[in-house]
Amino acid sequence: MKIAVLGTGMVGQTIAARVAGLGHDVTIGTRDPEATLARSGDDGSFADWVAANPTVTLATFAEAAAGADLVVNATSGSATLSVLEAAGADNLAGKTLLDIANPLDFSNGFPPTLFVKDTDSLGEQVQRAFPETKVVKSLNTLTAQLMVNPAGLGADSSVFVSGNDADAKATVTQLLRSFGHTDVIDLGDITTARGTEMLLPVWLRLMGALGTPMFNFKIAR
Amino acid sequence: MKIAVLGTGMVGQTIAARVAGLGHDVTIGTRDPEATLARSGDDGSFADWVAANPTVTLATFAEAAAGADLVVNATSGSATLSVLEAAGADNLAGKTLLDIANPLDFSNGFPPTLFVKDTDSLGEQVQRAFPETKVVKSLNTLTAQLMVNPAGLGADSSVFVSGNDADAKATVTQLLRSFGHTDVIDLGDITTARGTEMLLPVWLRLMGALGTPMFNFKIAR
Repeated sequence: MKIAVLGTGMVGQTIAARVAGLGHDVTIGTRDPEATLARSGDDGSFADWVAANPTVTLATFAEAAAGADLVVNATSGSATLSVLEAAGADNLAGKTLLDIANPLDFSNGFPPTLFVKDTDSLGEQVQRAFPETKVVKSLNTLTAQLMVNPAGLGADSSVFVSGNDADAKATVTQLLRSFGHTDVIDLGDITTARGTEMLLPVWLRLMGALGTPMFNFKIAR
Repeated sequence: MKIAVLGTGMVGQTIAARVAGLGHDVTIGTRDPEATLARSGDDGSFADWVAANPTVTLATFAEAAAGADLVVNATSGSATLSVLEAAGADNLAGKTLLDIANPLDFSNGFPPTLFVKDTDSLGEQVQRAFPETKVVKSLNTLTAQLMVNPAGLGADSSVFVSGNDADAKATVTQLLRSFGHTDVIDLGDITTARGTEMLLPVWLRLMGALGTPMFNFKIAR
């Protein structure tokens, strides 16, 4: 499958490397590829990451989305709508969009609050802004490393899918299973993203209490 | 231990019966004991429940709180502050209050929204209103039957405690362990109740997707 991963941060890098490793044709999208290649991060430069992942192509958001069958939104919640605008509604039309972003608001420090919640969600905002796109919210409830390798936890755990299109949810579920997720729970339509986005406040407190992001929710039943 | 359970609904009845069964001295508090005894509910009258639980005393909120070492708030979120006012700040002073209530707002139908969230919580509202009381938020993240008998699920699961007083959290944790809870996670001070109260939206969608309230969150790690 041709997959575009929008966002070059830790989530984008982790997802892109994993899907490339599974044999998919992966393009990572960014606002300005030259600027991204020139940037150095805390964990080494992005150019180093590209060198370590030679099968992944770097392109603009629009180029990445245009060539993809499936698009992954791996940007921050505050950047999501502007990044998807840059990717272009036409380039996203008819496609499945796996939306991993959370509506975190860090403007008042840590822990962040949510800039949309309870009566709406970022997933719904994206679906309303791009009605021709099949938005599936998933993977926003665990840390990047476990998104793509849940077996690394050494304990059974759950992930959720929310979306209006059954085929798009099936496509995302198949991708999740290929990552190793054995318990994928379909919560219903995109409004159910309100539930999973509102998991973030307890996730953040759990990270504080446990001293690690290496945990996940299992729905015991 | 002398335990007052405020609230005669399903949560109150379930908690009261369980702690009585464990040998505690239990009073269930209500606004008007005579009216409560005269009331018939969907599952039989409260008088039937009292007859089936002969060791549990029925009293006013104030009488129940006055005689207790530990008070359990098993009322609905919308009634919580007025019930605790009726119980009386003096009767609650110096005591541990196990607060199970969730700030659910059913005014726009189902699923309910939260009338306080993200930058505040019902647990914090209670703590601010009753500063002499040691508020511990817990058990608000699972159905009543599993609150008091988690082993009934047949799968390992987690519960959380949030509160400012370490001794009060230890008392509540001991009570939870006596119910059968093996994984009690201390999230920190009462502000962390924001996290567990915000679990309700996904809990409600999970109940819809799974078709049962018989599930719980396990923090897999």
